[in-house]
Amino acid sequence: MKKYVIGIDVGGTNIKLGLIDSLGTILSRRNLITCSCSQTKNKLIDSLVATIKLLMEDNGLNIQDVLGVGVGLPGLINFEKGIVTSLTNISGWRNVPLMSLLQKKLKVPVFIDNDVNLIALGEWKFGAGRGYDNLLCMTLGTGVGSGIILNGDLYRGEGFAAGELGHMPLNEKGPSCNCHGFGCFECYVGSSVLTAKAAKIFKNKNIKLEDVYDLAIGGNVRAVQFWEETAAHVGNGLVGVVNLLNPRLIVIGGGVAKSYKLMQKVIEDIVKKRAMRTQSSMVKIVRAKLGDDAGLIGAQVLISSSLEKIKK
Amino acid sequence: MKKYVIGIDVGGTNIKLGLIDSLGTILSRRNLITCSCSQTKNKLIDSLVATIKLLMEDNGLNIQDVLGVGVGLPGLINFEKGIVTSLTNISGWRNVPLMSLLQKKLKVPVFIDNDVNLIALGEWKFGAGRGYDNLLCMTLGTGVGSGIILNGDLYRGEGFAAGELGHMPLNEKGPSCNCHGFGCFECYVGSSVLTAKAAKIFKNKNIKLEDVYDLAIGGNVRAVQFWEETAAHVGNGLVGVVNLLNPRLIVIGGGVAKSYKLMQKVIEDIVKKRAMRTQSSMVKIVRAKLGDDAGLIGAQVLISSSLEKIKK
Repeated sequence: MKKYVIGIDVGGTNIKLGLIDSLGTILSRRNLITCSCSQTKNKLIDSLVATIKLLMEDNGLNIQDVLGVGVGLPGLINFEKGIVTSLTNISGWRNVPLMSLLQKKLKVPVFIDNDVNLIALGEWKFGAGRGYDNLLCMTLGTGVGSGIILNGDLYRGEGFAAGELGHMPLNEKGPSCNCHGFGCFECYVGSSVLTAKAAKIFKNKNIKLEDVYDLAIGGNVRAVQFWEETAAHVGNGLVGVVNLLNPRLIVIGGGVAKSYKLMQKVIEDIVKKRAMRTQSSMVKIVRAKLGDDAGLIGAQVLISSSLEKIKK
Repeated sequence: MKKYVIGIDVGGTNIKLGLIDSLGTILSRRNLITCSCSQTKNKLIDSLVATIKLLMEDNGLNIQDVLGVGVGLPGLINFEKGIVTSLTNISGWRNVPLMSLLQKKLKVPVFIDNDVNLIALGEWKFGAGRGYDNLLCMTLGTGVGSGIILNGDLYRGEGFAAGELGHMPLNEKGPSCNCHGFGCFECYVGSSVLTAKAAKIFKNKNIKLEDVYDLAIGGNVRAVQFWEETAAHVGNGLVGVVNLLNPRLIVIGGGVAKSYKLMQKVIEDIVKKRAMRTQSSMVKIVRAKLGDDAGLIGAQVLISSSLEKIKK
């Protein structure tokens, strides 16, 4: 019986490929550089196909040995039609029927989805979200996004654009956001905003969030305060979604979440204090478990759940 | 074939009962006063049973002629177990197994749910939400709530507490809310808050929102401004949920929505301006169609969909 899946995680600068088994273990990996290929879709697709074949050879397998190929991309993806509507920070991709293009070349089932959705699927089935039916998996990085699992299924939204937790406003008035809104959650906790804030506080243009983490661990009061303020925004940003969706679990991942242990108490306290009793009493907030591999591992879940639904 | 359903809509002061056909038409009605019965659950249940029998007699029918009885209650309802966990503003109801109590006496299927969920089900199948799969039905009254239909199904949340749109904060700091949070949507647009605000503006303790509506229709500038300010809060409150859930439709009902036509343009403009492009381009915002009957009519949907699921 076929049990492997190929996962592809397309990022702004590189593309990760992995051979994954049915338990969500990444058995083998390959990488590709995204940048130069961004303007030439066909070249990128050809490179993907060639790299998949190499990955198969690495493992003494043939493409026909896999259940399917799951691709996560940073942008708006029409999961049902398998079309890349648009990509964030990668130009030249508009309404590309990536699913059928890859399927024709590979002759195995291909499914494509938004990268944060794949992260949520991965954490749900093989990471911090195992066993839960109603959860939100939040990515706290340059962008702030989320994948939403409700009633035991990924919720994608009417136009596959659901999950934009980072663009729930925290205030009626607030800073401008690159989504053309203002006062968005992301304007307060996105990593570039935080890095700029840290540069001001510590009067150091080159400071990184990792440095602020190290400073806080070392007892620097302003650094501790920096993470507490960030945590307060995160907590405030979660109250609305906790009250609205009454989830059992919130999983927090992404780059900024590396400082989760410095933020955990404040986040939990604010949600407990500010969210409604029923909702706050049952929601658990935890750090993501799969790190940078969540998207690749999520491809396994995407393929198996999609094939299951087709069977029905 | 059985085609009737009995709907029961429990409010703080009175209880509406209706005989409803499969097209969502209320064929016959009865009413009960809630107040005196609130402390004596058994008496209330007996009255309900007696009134149902009268309603049957009114129509020359027998209880066995109905598919089931659907009850909407203002509070936290465990739909799956059929238990009233607690009621808002009606004391003495804690963990009451209302479904089984009624079922024993009536010998037909009974389902119970939160009243706003029933309103959402009614509007979805027979009102403003017909044909949509992803929609939010918002009630704008003393309380601000919502019923959420996602992927063609009512989403109730892990603890049956989902939909608390009125308690999504609009600001990180803001007025205290009776949910023990602060800055909640409801603190800005709940009808008691609005009435108090109107009393101040118009220096009239007894002014009602209907009066402010009439004043605005008559061209009173402060009254027009009053509704525009309210609409701005409503619009701001919807941006987050539009970005997060990417619904196709938002239905606005409840008492305050009687002024919907005075608020519509500002609400739509703010959502268009502030929400993300994909989400705002596809969301329609409309006024509810079924008025005060939505909850009763929703009982038909509750019964038919619940019986359908049991069959599967």
